[in-house]
Amino acid sequence: MKTTKQITISVIGGGNVAFHLLNALYKKSEIIVKQIYNRSDFSSDFDIFPIEKIHNLTDLKPVDVCFIAVKDEVIAQIAQNIPFSDSLIVHTSGNTEMEILKGKNNIGVFYPLQSFSKSKSVDFKNIPICLEAENKTDLQLLEKIARLLSEKVYFMDSKQRKYLHISAVFANNFTNYMLTVSQQICQQQHIPFEILSPLIEETFHKIKHIPPAQAQTGPARRDDKKTIHEHLQLLNASQGELYKQITNAILDDYGKEKL
Amino acid sequence: MKTTKQITISVIGGGNVAFHLLNALYKKSEIIVKQIYNRSDFSSDFDIFPIEKIHNLTDLKPVDVCFIAVKDEVIAQIAQNIPFSDSLIVHTSGNTEMEILKGKNNIGVFYPLQSFSKSKSVDFKNIPICLEAENKTDLQLLEKIARLLSEKVYFMDSKQRKYLHISAVFANNFTNYMLTVSQQICQQQHIPFEILSPLIEETFHKIKHIPPAQAQTGPARRDDKKTIHEHLQLLNASQGELYKQITNAILDDYGKEKL
Repeated sequence: MKTTKQITISVIGGGNVAFHLLNALYKKSEIIVKQIYNRSDFSSDFDIFPIEKIHNLTDLKPVDVCFIAVKDEVIAQIAQNIPFSDSLIVHTSGNTEMEILKGKNNIGVFYPLQSFSKSKSVDFKNIPICLEAENKTDLQLLEKIARLLSEKVYFMDSKQRKYLHISAVFANNFTNYMLTVSQQICQQQHIPFEILSPLIEETFHKIKHIPPAQAQTGPARRDDKKTIHEHLQLLNASQGELYKQITNAILDDYGKEKL
Repeated sequence: MKTTKQITISVIGGGNVAFHLLNALYKKSEIIVKQIYNRSDFSSDFDIFPIEKIHNLTDLKPVDVCFIAVKDEVIAQIAQNIPFSDSLIVHTSGNTEMEILKGKNNIGVFYPLQSFSKSKSVDFKNIPICLEAENKTDLQLLEKIARLLSEKVYFMDSKQRKYLHISAVFANNFTNYMLTVSQQICQQQHIPFEILSPLIEETFHKIKHIPPAQAQTGPARRDDKKTIHEHLQLLNASQGELYKQITNAILDDYGKEKL
């Protein structure tokens, strides 16, 4: 019987990332989750984990990797209060530099690129995990863990990860907001929003095959200023401002005169 | 044997909408396509249709329904030059009023809501078709034709259809542009854009189950001005302007202070 040393970890945080990361790691025989920490009580979702739950950082014991999955603004403070040294601590944030963790421990980043909702189960297999570490051994350890969860493992420094995070804001948050405005307009005009479902599906289906810059259509892409001005007259002030800004960006990208 | 009178039609136009509409109608035994008209030569795609092709509007013969599937700006001119009267002529445009067709014929609208590319085959079954007509008999005829093609038939006046068209610009053209910017940022930073594929899929999968306004996440939704300002510092002028505008719109929608 071949035995490999199991990797001991702990998870700090009681939010969506902490929950889903824990849920994925907990099932792996290669991993032992020693402790989970949250400043306040854990929500009842966490009841499924028969793991020691602590509420004082001073109770945290040394492990191979300590995952800090908390809000960006408290990562540094948590890192400073880790009671042990010479272990590896990592955060899970897209927009936070690795260096913020610097102190008595080795440092790294384990960033799963996905928008997590507590209610929705997550299959980590397709979630890209972006890794960074100060030294090679730590990076290898993180890679080992990442590959237990996902088929998509990337190495990326803090600067690239920040830009990836901004790209994700455009690709996720801002696309979603465009759909929100679309729905608002439908609602105001008593048009059932589901009329647009096939078009929305086609939009997202298309970019699997052709780059979005090539898939661009619409009045701005056609430089159809007549339609653009007609649209602007029908929209309310804030919708119009947004329409104008995005239209100008498209016109500019394709070398056309802005509005 | 039950016989029903076949519906005779003709199609005006040589673009994507004309092609796909023709392709769908031509296959139906209930429909006879009499003629197709284009000002200039038809592209070779149209070779598959053994239908009389004409290039003079004066050669156009009366039919039950004449579909005008041309660019918005020439619809009126085409309609004025239809040589017959007392038939039904319809246009296929989202952004054009039915009244523009007014003349010697009955008028209507047959608007399939989809973004057509010549290279990509289209299954009309799921494409919403929005109908309008001046009189009830014509509307019934259009409905009969629409239901031969699609399971999704809607009745909508010109004003509603214009707003639907604007909603489609947000839901399709603008979402696509957000993905374009996302890809541009990745390219500039040498990040492979496919890292974002699972996130993009999740974005569009989510809105099948929850309304986009509810699915909104990200720095603007969280009112996380620190992250927003960090992002703005990393973006170039035009990306930053766009980011700021959309972020302000989201902040405003959720009752937060704008930047």
